[in-house]
Amino acid sequence: MSESVTIALDAMGGDHAPAKVVHGADLALERHPGTRFLLFGNEAQIQPLLSKFPRLAAASVVHHTDEVVLDDAKPSQALRSARRSSMRLAIDAVAAGQAHGVVSAGNTGALMAIAKFVLKTLPGIDRPAIATMFPTRRGESVMLDLGANVECDAENLVQFALMGDVFARTVLSLRQPSVGLLNVGSEDLKGNDAVRAASARLRDGSVPIRFYGFIEGDDIAAGTVDVIVTDGFTGNVTLKAIEGIAKLFAESLRASFEHSLSARIGYLFARGALQKFRTRLDPRRYNGAMFLGLAGIAVKSHGSTDAFGFANAIAVAIDLQVNGFLQKISAELARMRRAPVAEDVAEPAAQPSPAL
Amino acid sequence: MSESVTIALDAMGGDHAPAKVVHGADLALERHPGTRFLLFGNEAQIQPLLSKFPRLAAASVVHHTDEVVLDDAKPSQALRSARRSSMRLAIDAVAAGQAHGVVSAGNTGALMAIAKFVLKTLPGIDRPAIATMFPTRRGESVMLDLGANVECDAENLVQFALMGDVFARTVLSLRQPSVGLLNVGSEDLKGNDAVRAASARLRDGSVPIRFYGFIEGDDIAAGTVDVIVTDGFTGNVTLKAIEGIAKLFAESLRASFEHSLSARIGYLFARGALQKFRTRLDPRRYNGAMFLGLAGIAVKSHGSTDAFGFANAIAVAIDLQVNGFLQKISAELARMRRAPVAEDVAEPAAQPSPAL
Repeated sequence: MSESVTIALDAMGGDHAPAKVVHGADLALERHPGTRFLLFGNEAQIQPLLSKFPRLAAASVVHHTDEVVLDDAKPSQALRSARRSSMRLAIDAVAAGQAHGVVSAGNTGALMAIAKFVLKTLPGIDRPAIATMFPTRRGESVMLDLGANVECDAENLVQFALMGDVFARTVLSLRQPSVGLLNVGSEDLKGNDAVRAASARLRDGSVPIRFYGFIEGDDIAAGTVDVIVTDGFTGNVTLKAIEGIAKLFAESLRASFEHSLSARIGYLFARGALQKFRTRLDPRRYNGAMFLGLAGIAVKSHGSTDAFGFANAIAVAIDLQVNGFLQKISAELARMRRAPVAEDVAEPAAQPSPAL
Repeated sequence: MSESVTIALDAMGGDHAPAKVVHGADLALERHPGTRFLLFGNEAQIQPLLSKFPRLAAASVVHHTDEVVLDDAKPSQALRSARRSSMRLAIDAVAAGQAHGVVSAGNTGALMAIAKFVLKTLPGIDRPAIATMFPTRRGESVMLDLGANVECDAENLVQFALMGDVFARTVLSLRQPSVGLLNVGSEDLKGNDAVRAASARLRDGSVPIRFYGFIEGDDIAAGTVDVIVTDGFTGNVTLKAIEGIAKLFAESLRASFEHSLSARIGYLFARGALQKFRTRLDPRRYNGAMFLGLAGIAVKSHGSTDAFGFANAIAVAIDLQVNGFLQKISAELARMRRAPVAEDVAEPAAQPSPAL
């Protein structure tokens, strides 16, 4: 592969595919000139779309396949049977070294199952996690896991903390990101066994991160920490709840401005400022959930996003590659395996040493 | 007790107590004439405040105590040692039949521990749950548990579903409220063991509620169901996350209107409509978390709310009493104990009957 970044695209995943995927890739190419694309999917549908985007056409290779992973396919089913699907072939391209990363707006469970099977997890990581960035009062934070692991033990949470830390340092360029563990209270005794044990581990010095401690739900939007760690059940429900309330808020606001003539006039004056407000909280800007912990870059786009949102998901994959996320997380994990963990060093042996 | 409702108030709980509590009680009395109050706390502080509210003074009896439960007291500690605290005495008044319900803005964990110990749980309920109402696209919904039970099994979730259903029927006056179980996806196979087993139980017909099935995080604000059931960990984190994002949203909006002269002019025109918008989503309107499953009415106010918010928490306690929540939930639980559950009837015996 040359110096430029090559991204494999599941052209058939998500609503309005492949049109959205092709248009999104063109927008991404505009922002990241030099990127190359491998498009996997129905050539008869893709080629006419590409002809509208000559710049993208020149930077793309189309690999035809008839098969797709359906939105309601079970992950195990997609893994076993859809070996020639656009999703599978796009992931295979990463494993084969033909692309640096894969982006799909298709079935999340299938994408995770196939990516895990094909790309494998990194040494030292038991389970990959889904991570995303989002806007906070202070800027932006990253949160994981968002649903890859419905049940997590302390060790999983510790690994998520480490991955989130490396992500924040490499991609968000933070020197010493703070990492918080989501809980129902900030005191040490709060929460379930997993979060308490993970907190103890993260405090003992064996994991080289700046651990803030427990945070609560309202710390997410407040931007109290740069990295929010939680299990996949809580993370998934919380993130979707936030998306839901943001949508309700935006709708109610719009309705308010249509409420009266006076309000409509007010809107005309405030339009510019409101546009800035909308832009900052636009969920499409934060589209692109990263599968961290895999030995390859895989990004999931919202199925219902538009071309602008899909372009952002592609940008996330490019960012991970350009910033050397995989190399840095691998080095960090190798370093941790070499270094004895602090508790092994500090704790006295349970039985007296024969030498004493 | 007469026909009127009597509420016991922990006058010393929360920020700006007892001033906020006294002022809040006066606002509640204005909305619910005839209500009587028992105020527990420092008489030297309470009496001068009461003298400013003659209407409230005429409807109140002050019970002096010097002790308070501190905000950082552990529940077990508060339960053992604070027998003369304003919180404990207010709860004792409910147990003794002197008040219909108790409202406190103090330490949540202590309030739950003491209320559970003093008031006891209802027969058929293993663990009480914390519930609250909040605004949705369709109106308002109720959600539980919000943190009383960090880990829940299927049976706990089933009991929460039943309590939420009775609450929605009695207090929200819904004839057949829909009940949803919060999960990471809507398919039967999604989620952890507890939610899957609870869903199976709620579908088998043994619990007399209208079970919608699984819902996801974004269904909360959408108002997909009237009653949202979840474990206390997920519920606590989710609700606080929603509160956090709502606050960020409101702040960002305010900043937008201060962004330019044009925006400020726009605000003047749109002020009335924006006021309506703010009113609808004002968190103070939804203040008052109910402890459901206890053999008495106990409501927790946000510690940081103002008099208006505290008055709403009092109104929640009054609503529960006026609508006969305790009688109806008790009757429902008794009915379920009498009726054999569907699975006992429908399932063949594991071993052949001797009569066959």
